[in-house]
This record gives sequence, structure tokens and C-alpha cells, in this order.
Amino acid sequence: MHDRIHHAGLAERVMPAERAAEQIQPGMTVAMSGFTGAGYPKAVPRALAARMEAAGGGFRIRVLTGASTAPDLDGVLARADGVELRLPYQSDPALRDRINAGDIDYLDIHLSHVAQHTWFGYFGHVDVAVVEVVAILEDGRLVPSSSVGNNKTWLDQADKVILEVNSFQPAAMEGMHDIYYGTALPPDRLPIPLTRPDDRIGSPYLHVDPAKVVAVVETDAPDRNSPFTPPDDASRQIAGHLLEFFEHEVARGRLTEQLLPLQSGVGNIANAVLTALGDAGYEGLTAFTEVIQDSMLDLVRGGVLSTASATSFSLSATGVEEFITNVDFYRDRIVLRPQEISNHPELIRRLGCIAMNGMIEADIYGNVNSTHVAGTRVMNGIGGSGDFARNAYLSVFMSPSIARGGVISGIVPMVSHVDHTEHDTMVIVTEQGLADLRGLSPKQRAQLVIDHCAHPDYRPLLQDYFDRARRDSYGKHTPHLLHEALSWHERLVEQGTMLPEGGSTGPGAPGGDG
Amino acid sequence: MHDRIHHAGLAERVMPAERAAEQIQPGMTVAMSGFTGAGYPKAVPRALAARMEAAGGGFRIRVLTGASTAPDLDGVLARADGVELRLPYQSDPALRDRINAGDIDYLDIHLSHVAQHTWFGYFGHVDVAVVEVVAILEDGRLVPSSSVGNNKTWLDQADKVILEVNSFQPAAMEGMHDIYYGTALPPDRLPIPLTRPDDRIGSPYLHVDPAKVVAVVETDAPDRNSPFTPPDDASRQIAGHLLEFFEHEVARGRLTEQLLPLQSGVGNIANAVLTALGDAGYEGLTAFTEVIQDSMLDLVRGGVLSTASATSFSLSATGVEEFITNVDFYRDRIVLRPQEISNHPELIRRLGCIAMNGMIEADIYGNVNSTHVAGTRVMNGIGGSGDFARNAYLSVFMSPSIARGGVISGIVPMVSHVDHTEHDTMVIVTEQGLADLRGLSPKQRAQLVIDHCAHPDYRPLLQDYFDRARRDSYGKHTPHLLHEALSWHERLVEQGTMLPEGGSTGPGAPGGDG
Repeated sequence: MHDRIHHAGLAERVMPAERAAEQIQPGMTVAMSGFTGAGYPKAVPRALAARMEAAGGGFRIRVLTGASTAPDLDGVLARADGVELRLPYQSDPALRDRINAGDIDYLDIHLSHVAQHTWFGYFGHVDVAVVEVVAILEDGRLVPSSSVGNNKTWLDQADKVILEVNSFQPAAMEGMHDIYYGTALPPDRLPIPLTRPDDRIGSPYLHVDPAKVVAVVETDAPDRNSPFTPPDDASRQIAGHLLEFFEHEVARGRLTEQLLPLQSGVGNIANAVLTALGDAGYEGLTAFTEVIQDSMLDLVRGGVLSTASATSFSLSATGVEEFITNVDFYRDRIVLRPQEISNHPELIRRLGCIAMNGMIEADIYGNVNSTHVAGTRVMNGIGGSGDFARNAYLSVFMSPSIARGGVISGIVPMVSHVDHTEHDTMVIVTEQGLADLRGLSPKQRAQLVIDHCAHPDYRPLLQDYFDRARRDSYGKHTPHLLHEALSWHERLVEQGTMLPEGGSTGPGAPGGDG
Repeated sequence: MHDRIHHAGLAERVMPAERAAEQIQPGMTVAMSGFTGAGYPKAVPRALAARMEAAGGGFRIRVLTGASTAPDLDGVLARADGVELRLPYQSDPALRDRINAGDIDYLDIHLSHVAQHTWFGYFGHVDVAVVEVVAILEDGRLVPSSSVGNNKTWLDQADKVILEVNSFQPAAMEGMHDIYYGTALPPDRLPIPLTRPDDRIGSPYLHVDPAKVVAVVETDAPDRNSPFTPPDDASRQIAGHLLEFFEHEVARGRLTEQLLPLQSGVGNIANAVLTALGDAGYEGLTAFTEVIQDSMLDLVRGGVLSTASATSFSLSATGVEEFITNVDFYRDRIVLRPQEISNHPELIRRLGCIAMNGMIEADIYGNVNSTHVAGTRVMNGIGGSGDFARNAYLSVFMSPSIARGGVISGIVPMVSHVDHTEHDTMVIVTEQGLADLRGLSPKQRAQLVIDHCAHPDYRPLLQDYFDRARRDSYGKHTPHLLHEALSWHERLVEQGTMLPEGGSTGPGAPGGDG
């Protein structure tokens, strides 16, 4: 009985998810665990969604999380029309559809900002926290689960706490986490004493006032596993360009053979880059990042990475098995931290991270859109890309040069939404090549991006735009033709392709002086 | 003789500016002192410009500074067609004209990034530094002048150094500066041990290897003084709204009566806000900012500010006189630091600054354009606004709601250039009112910005755009009509006004479903 719940008082509060969910009332602000599909509560959100549906409408809550969760949380609540407001990063299709239909207020926030803005009171009062843990110790301390996210803040700030104790998560994770309890509100803040990615500056446990814990729910369910797809050609080519760039930087003395702590987004390109680092013979590298995905686990296993610091896992079923089988090995080499620490500007700048993130599109001047399709439909949110890009030693943005069979160009005249400004982008990579924008003016950047990163189908169109803009633009510092700058996105929305009628037909095609 | 030059070896290197300028050859990278018109070299740039003009063309250099300088530096070099590349912030009309004519490569960089990117090698090698100081001590240490900027980095990184010793600057400034020498390159960086705005963590002096000093030039000239203009009505109204907001935040317990360290841009609105703080009876406040202008000096004098940390002065002639007369008083209450410290993300976030900056325009969703008129003509650059806004406890952007007699709206459907994203803007203020965007989704922000900040002449036009965008936009998360989003700027460029023909005529005017 309750072999993960060793605190006597809390063992008495074990109840079914349905009863626990009764603590949550319409209009409440509910803070949940979960980051990139790991460590989210598995049972209470589903029970809550059932209550919402039974209410027949009007039962909506404000949902705060670490980042993206799973169909079992964002999906069921969105389908029950139970979400009034959601923050921060999300990736559930049902939730995203409702956001883009205009039905849900979505707040897209830098991941490093979420905890402190909660403390500052910017999101109002937190009524209930629902947090998955691996175990409850005799004294009430909590063994964190496969993600930490904002759980420290949720447990501190909420009036009431519901714990989900998930026995599927390996108990041997105990000791892997590092929860920093030295934060404070201004003006009482002190330096964060972390100078290397593997420094441990806090406690392996989360703390909670047991008196606030109104329910404990037992679960036994895996995280939403992220299927691992082997890198495709474009991803491998992007990785190749980036690896060549690293070699060049090492040769120029701007990086050592150990590079600097790596931050990597998730997904196919990230997997390809990490895999390529291993294949290229690097060793003794470090990661200071948000998420540990399969390829990063491989690098730790192979010694390419001596240590990896993150706030969450995001593993395939195979990755989970590998992790569980060798948890003792990984526990010494992986640290999971609160996301306010994993993404902290102070630490990212101090460590000098190499930030590698995907994007939706970049424009010729180096502005990057990470969040909005055609400027209006949000995908997943900015995540931690801003925390890392702004403060990194090197900020890299990567994307295939085309998408959806060629009807979308990843390089456009002007991005339709800006998440990373020209001031924050150093390197852009597509399968076509790499543009190193450091030390360049807007016009110098534009020519490099067109030459190195654009797809051949779009390159002449971009060159034509840039040439005409240099000639006809009101100002010639950042030349643009305002009536044409967003026309590629208009065409995409109206005609289903960024290509002008007749496809790519070389310079002049967009209509002379347009 | 040489009563400011106490180092024997360096006294022997005193020479006229004309001879010193001979050290600078075409194509060189030259790093100069200077920040907001203070502490820039007064003689060598002019002598260099004369050489450039004598060369009859083709004599161009790359110019790195702290921020904006003066006609005596940026102006003379630009007019001599002597600038190939310039970074970072600038404000000289002659230089700006050449940048916007497309003749000069201008790099607009966060002020906190300049020093470290130089150390990283991103701007190439620094050939010569030209730095104004107040005095040279017997052992070669340098008393910094009225700005610190990047001088520490320039003196460290340059092959050759030219010092200008300006006897107009008060010798009694000695002891006022705090030059932090604890910086390092990753992976060897440590926490910066500053926890209060008045902490002194370094040396009052700049260090230079005397062997690198190839010339010392004596000058006796004031800084380019910034004329102080009394706040106009709009500025006073903006200040009024902001002060009311502060009171509200204090009442809600989100700020104490001492507020938090203030960062303030320069200019009319900033003067009005600072003056209003004094008039409202605040005392014992602190400033952790870039620039000390007249109104901030007044606040220090009156005890409203107990301490002010910055990297530069920007005073009127009257302000300079007040400062010189009472330099002993101010030296204990004002600290000038390198701009990598005054603007450091680690410190701004730790201290929890209240960041107050001007802007060119904001859009209804809270994106801010600080740099480009109509998306293409650069004004001055981003300066430190990004360093502060991203890391602040509160980030405030301020502007009159209209400019140039009403043909320009400070609030637009979509900004024509993004310097601060929706993720970084908390509060927008115009003379019309204040929009507190914290915790709001894009559509909630838009309605608030339209209602509170837009000018009555533009408010119906914005409401109409927003209403139609909510109805017709491809995605409804951030509703936009792409073919119309930049039309206000098009009209401004083509017709000289953002107002549609017939002026403001209320909803529907822009052409129905346009």
C-alpha cells in the first residue's frame, strides 16, 4: 500500500482523481506540472475535464504549466472547453486549434519569466497546484518527477496542492534533481552560485507545506512519449553545416575543442545536430539546456557529453527504457532544475551557452519568427529560445529552407511576426548552407542569407526583392518595400503558396517595381 | 605643464592631435570613448577627419564607441566620408543621413553586448583606441572621464592607444568611477558581486599598458551639452499616468514606497517622469541606469535619489556647472561603471529594475519599434532598452500618441520594425493614458492599447482594423490583415500622413473590408 508515500499524514489524503478534482472550481487559477510532455499530472486533469463536461458549459479555469504537456492535460481540458487562459508554451493540437479560433486567451511568455512573474503577482493568485511527483518522503519532502518546470513555484504559491504520485516513474531518479531555494524577490536577490553546468546548488527534493496538500492521487502511467524519428536529409545537411562552422570557430580560436555548454531545442534537426557531434568525435562536452531528448541521452551514454543540465526529459519509449535500465549511470551525469534556473539569463550569459533553436522563418535581415504561421496563427510559443538566444555566446537558428513541399519558404523578405530581433540572431542555417551574421550590417546580412540559406526556388525572388528595396526603399539602412514586405504570407494564406503564379521564374517575376 | 599627466613616460608622449591622428590608417578598426555626448575624444577625430579629407577619398575606418558621441566625432568623420562601419548607438544627424543613404554599414547592438562581442572577436581586431580621460596618475592608472562606456575593453583590446587628457573635466571626479576588472571569457566567468546600485566592486581607475600608449593629446573642451528643455504638456501627462500607476502598484503591494532601482532613457519624457517623482514626495529611491541627465542630478541633490549608478552623464551647460560646483557631494552618490556592467542582464534582473524607455511606435499587440521610421530609416539604435526591458521587474515604453502635428500615430496596427517583442513589453504609456499589459493575451492587450493609449484621431481607425482583423484574420490568436498591416507606414511615406484621405472619419473609413 502506498509504497511511494511515506508521510503518514499525506498517506491519509490519498483519494481517487475524481474526488481530488472536486477541489477545482470554475474561474480558478490552476498551476500544473509538466514540461515537453514529461512529468504532467496523469489523472486529475482528465477527471476535471469530466466534471467540466458534466457541467454542460461555463466551467473554465486558468491553466499555468511549465511548458507543453500532453493530450491527457491540455487536450482533455481544451476539448471540454475548460480553458479560459493558458500559459506558457503549448503544443497540443486541440488546445492550439481553440487558441487560433480565438476561444482561449494564450499568454506566450519567456520560460525564464514564468516563475518570477507569478511571484510578482502578474498572473493573479494561484488557487490550486496539481503536481506529479515520484515519491513522498517520511518528512514530506517530494522526489520530483521527469520534469521540474515551475513546480517549486506552484507548490510555494498555491493555496491548495494536489499531488499525483506516479509509480511508473523510476524511484531511482531520487537524487538527480537540484531544486534551488535561494531565489528571492527584488531588492533582496543575490547572485546565483552556479558556475558550471554540473554544479548542484540546491536540494534534490521539492518542499511543500503538508497542511496545504488537500489530495494525493496515485497513478501508474508513462509520460506522453515523443516518438524518435531518424534525421532526414535536410536535418543531416543542417547538422553538417553547423559542425563545419564549429570546426571553423575552433580553428579560429573562438571556441575550444570542448566548445561551450550546449542548449538544443527538440526535434528532428536537434537530434541530427547532437548525433553529428557524437559522430565527429567530440568528447567531454557539456549541455546547459531545457530538455533531454533521446539523442542527448546517447551522447551522455557515449561520453560525448560529460554532463547535461536541463529542466525536463522528452524521451521516446526506447529512451525511457534506456534511462530506467541505466538510471544509476545517468543520475550522476544529468541534473534537472527548475526552469527559472535552467533558463536564467544570468546563468546562460555566465556559462556562454551555444544556443541552437528551430524557427518557423527568418527574414533576410536576421529577424526570426518562432511562433506564428502567417503572422496570426500561433504554433507552440517562444519557449526558452529567447532566454537562450539573447544571452548566448552563439545564437543559432535552424530550419529547412522550404516546407510543405515547397509552398513555404523558411527565408522571407520580412517575417510576419518577430520573436527574436536582428539584435539577437548570430547564425542562420538551412540545408542550403549557413549564414554567419556576426559583425554585419543589415544589408550585408541580407546578401549572405539569400546566398547561403534560401532555397533555389526562392533565391531569385528574394534577390529581386532586395535589389528593388535597395533602390526604392524610403530608408536604405534596412531596405524594404512596405507594400510587398508581407506579400509572401498573403499569397500563402490566399493561394496556398508563397510562390507567385507560375512558380519560380527568376528575377522580375514578382511584377517589376511591384 | 601637463598638470593632469603624472606618469613620466606618458608625459613624453604628449603631442598635437594632428600627429596622434597619423597613427590611424585606412581600413583600421578604431575604438573610441564616448556615450550620449559625454567623454568622447575632442581633438583626434577632427584631426583624423582632416587627414581623410586631404586624402581625397578612400580613407575610411571602422568606428566602435560606447554609444552616441558628438559632431566633433561622428559628425566630422561622417562628413569626411571616413566611416566604413559604425557601432553601436548613434545620434549624429550627418552620420545618420549617410547610414540611411546606404553609405555606411551600421551595426545596431544591445549596449551590454558590445564589450563581450569585442572580446569574443566578433568585430575583428581593434587596431587603435582613442579614449578621453581626466588625468593620468604617476603609476599610469587613468582617471575616467564623464562617461565610461566600453573604455576598459578598448584599452585592453587595442594594439595602440591614444589618450586625450581633457582638463575641462573636473579633476575632482577622481574616485567616482567603479571599473569592474572581474570579467572573463566563458567558461571562466563568475557571478558579478553587485547586489545594490551603490555597490563598488572594482577600481576607481582604468588600467592601460603604458607601452601601448603611442600618443597623449591634451584638450580643454566641454562635452557636447544636451540642452535641457522643460517638459511639455504631453510629457507631463505621460509622467502623471506613470506616477498614478506606481501609486497603484504600491497600494497593491507589488512595489514598496522605495519602488525599485530606476532606469530611465533620456529626453523630454524621461525628464518629466523624474521631475514628477520628486514632486510626488518620493525619497530614498535609487537608480541603476545608463545615463545621468539634469533631472536625475536634481533628484540626487534633493535626496529623492539616494544613489544613482550609470555609465555616463548627459548634462546641459547648467547641469555641468551644478555638477562641478558640488562634485564632492555627487561623487559620494553617483557611480559610473562600464556599460557592460550598467546594462548587464544579470544585474538588471537581480536588482529588479523599473525600465522606462521611449519608443518610436508600439503596435496594438505590444510590439515596440525603437529604431526605424517606417521600417527602413534608422534613428539612433536600440541602445540599452533591450538590456533593461527584457530583464526588468517592470518594463515601460512611453511616447506621445501622435507626432509631427498628428500625421504620425505612435500606436499602429503592426510596427514596421520590432526591437522589443510582445514577450518583453509590460506597460505602454502615452499622454492619453496607460495600458498595463501584464498577464494579458494579444487580443486583450490590443483592446487596452486602443482604449487607453491611442490618440482620438487614430482610435477609431485602430478599432476598425482590430474588429475586421478579428473577423477576417487567418489565425485569431494575433489577428492581422496582412495586406493592410503596414499600410499606415506606406501612407506616411507616400502621402506624408498616416491618416487616410479625408483625415479621421471614424469606423469604416479605411475602406470597409479593405
